[in-house]
Amino acid sequence: MTRNDISSAALSLTDARRLRADRARQVADVLRRRVLSGEFRSGPLPSEADLVGEFGASRNTVRDALDLLRAEGLVERCPGVGTIVVSQKYPHGLERLLGLAETLREHGEVVNQVRTTGLIDPPREIAARLRLPAGEPVVYIERLRRLNGLPLSLDLTYVARDLGEPLLEHDLASTDIFVLLERIAGQSLGHGEITVEAVNADPHLAATLEAPRGAALLMVERLAHLADGRPVDLEFIRFRGDRITMGGTLRRPDPWS
Amino acid sequence: MTRNDISSAALSLTDARRLRADRARQVADVLRRRVLSGEFRSGPLPSEADLVGEFGASRNTVRDALDLLRAEGLVERCPGVGTIVVSQKYPHGLERLLGLAETLREHGEVVNQVRTTGLIDPPREIAARLRLPAGEPVVYIERLRRLNGLPLSLDLTYVARDLGEPLLEHDLASTDIFVLLERIAGQSLGHGEITVEAVNADPHLAATLEAPRGAALLMVERLAHLADGRPVDLEFIRFRGDRITMGGTLRRPDPWS
Repeated sequence: MTRNDISSAALSLTDARRLRADRARQVADVLRRRVLSGEFRSGPLPSEADLVGEFGASRNTVRDALDLLRAEGLVERCPGVGTIVVSQKYPHGLERLLGLAETLREHGEVVNQVRTTGLIDPPREIAARLRLPAGEPVVYIERLRRLNGLPLSLDLTYVARDLGEPLLEHDLASTDIFVLLERIAGQSLGHGEITVEAVNADPHLAATLEAPRGAALLMVERLAHLADGRPVDLEFIRFRGDRITMGGTLRRPDPWS
Repeated sequence: MTRNDISSAALSLTDARRLRADRARQVADVLRRRVLSGEFRSGPLPSEADLVGEFGASRNTVRDALDLLRAEGLVERCPGVGTIVVSQKYPHGLERLLGLAETLREHGEVVNQVRTTGLIDPPREIAARLRLPAGEPVVYIERLRRLNGLPLSLDLTYVARDLGEPLLEHDLASTDIFVLLERIAGQSLGHGEITVEAVNADPHLAATLEAPRGAALLMVERLAHLADGRPVDLEFIRFRGDRITMGGTLRRPDPWS
């Protein structure tokens, strides 16, 4: 990979540093894709020399690119072995309303550590989104969710009382709330509204998720409705950024509609 | 908001600290929603005393909650005024394939600083995703994108050569690549495949986006196809996490399908 437009230009030291950081990011994006697709599950990444050859980049650039992936927690350097993948990112859909265990069924066992449950007087935003009159209590559930033993997310869930109280009688440690809600309501869920943001973990949350201080998290807010349209379950989910990739399909809108 | 199940329990100091951090997170989630909905655009947030009353939380918990939003870059404390909103998050859809200026049309003017353009020999993953034979060069474009002057994202774009070379003749500073691609191709775009991740900004990227070191970023990979199905535009986009909220709708899959 060469850049025709700049390779022959005379570069100041600052430009050269910027260029190297830019090139490292380009190389890192491609390597991240390979790592995430599982290409290096059975062995180390190619050697620095091989990557230098493949990308037509300097050894320092390749090292910087590997450092970027190391800072993301995806790879680690192993003396005598090379650079190996140390973390797996799991795919999470952006189209289908699924619980975590349903989503990750192929990838292992989801176990929920229930940290808090109880009936609370919700703040007015929570009541409004669940379309409840002011003063109506809701059930609050806080769960630390693990996949194959590794912390994946901290979920704060608010459920309408008529469904939430029976929910607390069930096994929340090993069953998705969505599945239980459908059993209790006697109807399936319908749609969900989702927002996705990136935030840094505060120190306490980082410790809870066993992530580095300030780690980037995918923060998901999700309001699930029953098939009849009633909103019943509002969740604030903080996923470890190094463990989840969300994916979906976009459609180009008809210019005439 | 009180927790019936724990309010009367005797708490150890560690439990009390954990509880306070957990409560602060709950309060912060609700305040974040209010901030993002624009509720405090014309004045400060309620006073700490008012929030204490509203949430039934201790003053320390309320302070911790405000600190969480401050760490996210959403609010700032102003002596003599109170806590004010200092950043706006812009909505970005998860369903429609739109360029940034198209997406943010209502929110202001998008200006692109074109940092690099050129013809490159792409790494094999890039060629494979654009369904190009090995050795076929692609056009590479790197843009820092600003909304109303504020850095929003750094976009690394790879475009098939037949469309990418004419693209470079156009005004990339003020026009979305999507819009130009449709003009050049003589057909509209069709669908896009998107993945969304949260990553920390490396020091160089943080400086480029004028964000704090390690700031959480929404990292988006997006492959746009023409209406005829041909993939033509692969982008790696790093959004400042404090400036973008992505939103969409999920559907509960039919259990019988």
